[in-house]
Amino acid sequence: MEIRTSYAADNYTIHVDHGILESRLADYSADYDAVYFLVDRNVYQLYKDSVLSFIDSPIILEGGEASKSFDAFKHITESLLERGIQRHHLIVVVGGGAAGDAGGFAAATVLRGVDYIQVPTTLLAHDSSIGAKTAINSTHGKNLIGVFYRPKAVIYDLSLLETLPQDEVLSGFGEVFKHALLKDEETVRDLMAETRGEITLDALKPFIISGIETKMHHVLNDEKESGIRKYLNLGHTLGHAIEYRYKMPHGIAVVLGLYFTMFLSNEVEGRKIFDLDHFREYFSHHGYPIHKLKSIDEDEMMSLMGRDKKNQSRAATGFVLMKSIGQCHFIEIENTELKKYLSYLKESL
Amino acid sequence: MEIRTSYAADNYTIHVDHGILESRLADYSADYDAVYFLVDRNVYQLYKDSVLSFIDSPIILEGGEASKSFDAFKHITESLLERGIQRHHLIVVVGGGAAGDAGGFAAATVLRGVDYIQVPTTLLAHDSSIGAKTAINSTHGKNLIGVFYRPKAVIYDLSLLETLPQDEVLSGFGEVFKHALLKDEETVRDLMAETRGEITLDALKPFIISGIETKMHHVLNDEKESGIRKYLNLGHTLGHAIEYRYKMPHGIAVVLGLYFTMFLSNEVEGRKIFDLDHFREYFSHHGYPIHKLKSIDEDEMMSLMGRDKKNQSRAATGFVLMKSIGQCHFIEIENTELKKYLSYLKESL
Repeated sequence: MEIRTSYAADNYTIHVDHGILESRLADYSADYDAVYFLVDRNVYQLYKDSVLSFIDSPIILEGGEASKSFDAFKHITESLLERGIQRHHLIVVVGGGAAGDAGGFAAATVLRGVDYIQVPTTLLAHDSSIGAKTAINSTHGKNLIGVFYRPKAVIYDLSLLETLPQDEVLSGFGEVFKHALLKDEETVRDLMAETRGEITLDALKPFIISGIETKMHHVLNDEKESGIRKYLNLGHTLGHAIEYRYKMPHGIAVVLGLYFTMFLSNEVEGRKIFDLDHFREYFSHHGYPIHKLKSIDEDEMMSLMGRDKKNQSRAATGFVLMKSIGQCHFIEIENTELKKYLSYLKESL
Repeated sequence: MEIRTSYAADNYTIHVDHGILESRLADYSADYDAVYFLVDRNVYQLYKDSVLSFIDSPIILEGGEASKSFDAFKHITESLLERGIQRHHLIVVVGGGAAGDAGGFAAATVLRGVDYIQVPTTLLAHDSSIGAKTAINSTHGKNLIGVFYRPKAVIYDLSLLETLPQDEVLSGFGEVFKHALLKDEETVRDLMAETRGEITLDALKPFIISGIETKMHHVLNDEKESGIRKYLNLGHTLGHAIEYRYKMPHGIAVVLGLYFTMFLSNEVEGRKIFDLDHFREYFSHHGYPIHKLKSIDEDEMMSLMGRDKKNQSRAATGFVLMKSIGQCHFIEIENTELKKYLSYLKESL
């Protein structure tokens, strides 16, 4: 399965399938004099004798967010330079969302930009590897330093997902669910039906493809986030704050953020767009800690949300809400109001 | 005097004049909710009670190359975030080439890009502030990490140049001379005539304007350096190596590099394009240490030149040479050959 971007220029292909990594990479690599691999430590440990056995002496990225520190950025770029990287060489980034963000930022900045290919290895990365965002973290929040930089290709080899621990599946599922909400009511209903008992990778595959398409649709004509790309932030305003404060996996925090978005959409529209009980039961059944929302500190959350780089003002907070499933809008909520809604949310649980 | 870029989009104006800083900045700032100043420490000390007295609590950049370390990059971006910078705010970078490179890279990457204005305060920065290059340094060489990121404007207030120490004038003059070489024989002749006795800022002004225009011409249709932008690298291949090895001011090392380029152009073309005695006497009279070229270590220089990010291969080194003044060409010289020419150069001095 292939999805091709349709920007005005600099397009690339997203390849999604089983067992395609080595052959697709061989095709792309043929255009370059040298290829450097940046590989997440955990992924390399898991696959170095199988799917990744063709990779010779990769540069190892620390797993997860550790790869997104300033020090890690220095280590990655200096390692590439140490090995003699030049402008016409290729970088291949193998790992989850964090590796992709960090490796992408290194590719974007070393020698002012070297071509790179993203090889996502987690479910969550079906989201983060699309959209050309790269980033590292600040002490003031996640992803606050980065650039937009498109890969030459995304190769999403689903065989790399088969060893994912269940909490990573749960985390990735957060974005799958968000993309279904952005698409339409039928997709949400189907997704919930297919995963009623358990969330399995097999059940998710069609929704991953559909999620990539939904994300591409939002990104294509709005790379720099002035319009509908903002809708991809659904659930993320509070989600990021929760993730940062409670060191919770990204997609799990996003599900909590999505729940608050549903709550807030109902409140702001003054009607029951979402059956909150139904969604809360579904999420809780799968182990998402919705109850945690009861113990958040409103002031702390307000302060963390204010640091989100998508927020345009200090007196109000930008929020993506829904008028119905598949229909988003962006509003600025006054901070005093928003804080009240956080209190109402806590009372409702 | 104003020079307007003519890219397909995202154009900006370069303002060059005396005493224009505060009023021009006021015009631009009106479009933004907040403005953050990144100011070189030495420049701020010199001008905080005069030309820069309108700036309130700037973020201070360490002078010179110290502002281009990874640590300084972290400090600058974290300071901006600490102060609450948001996407629709403006950054103003005041300082020489290093401050511009470092501040520009911070502006390009904080929140994935915030608008910025360059305020160059050195003669050398008439060059570095044009062309949208930003960068920090690696332990493997200068400017190896960065991005292309255009400012919203360049405000070149010549009153900030009046306190420049003579060695900074000499350094900046290196790029002025390069731009004259890129332009035509008449400009080189006039420049040398006007500066026969002494290099003064007053004599240089028309050549600064002309230099900016020459640089713009090379940059405009070739931002990413695939064609004629490379010619701006005239004198820089060896120049960077000398600068790095001997910790010499950039433009002074460039003059040494230009001298080698003249020597090499004569050798490669097999005719006397440049009267080397004439140029050597002129440069030496003004204090450029051309004699230092006699004691360079060929292997060391070869190794440093090989790390230059503009070099496309490891067996050969890319070099900009001249067929005549105003007429450049780019060639790849085999490394064994190039090393021989370095020896010939030493023997010739």
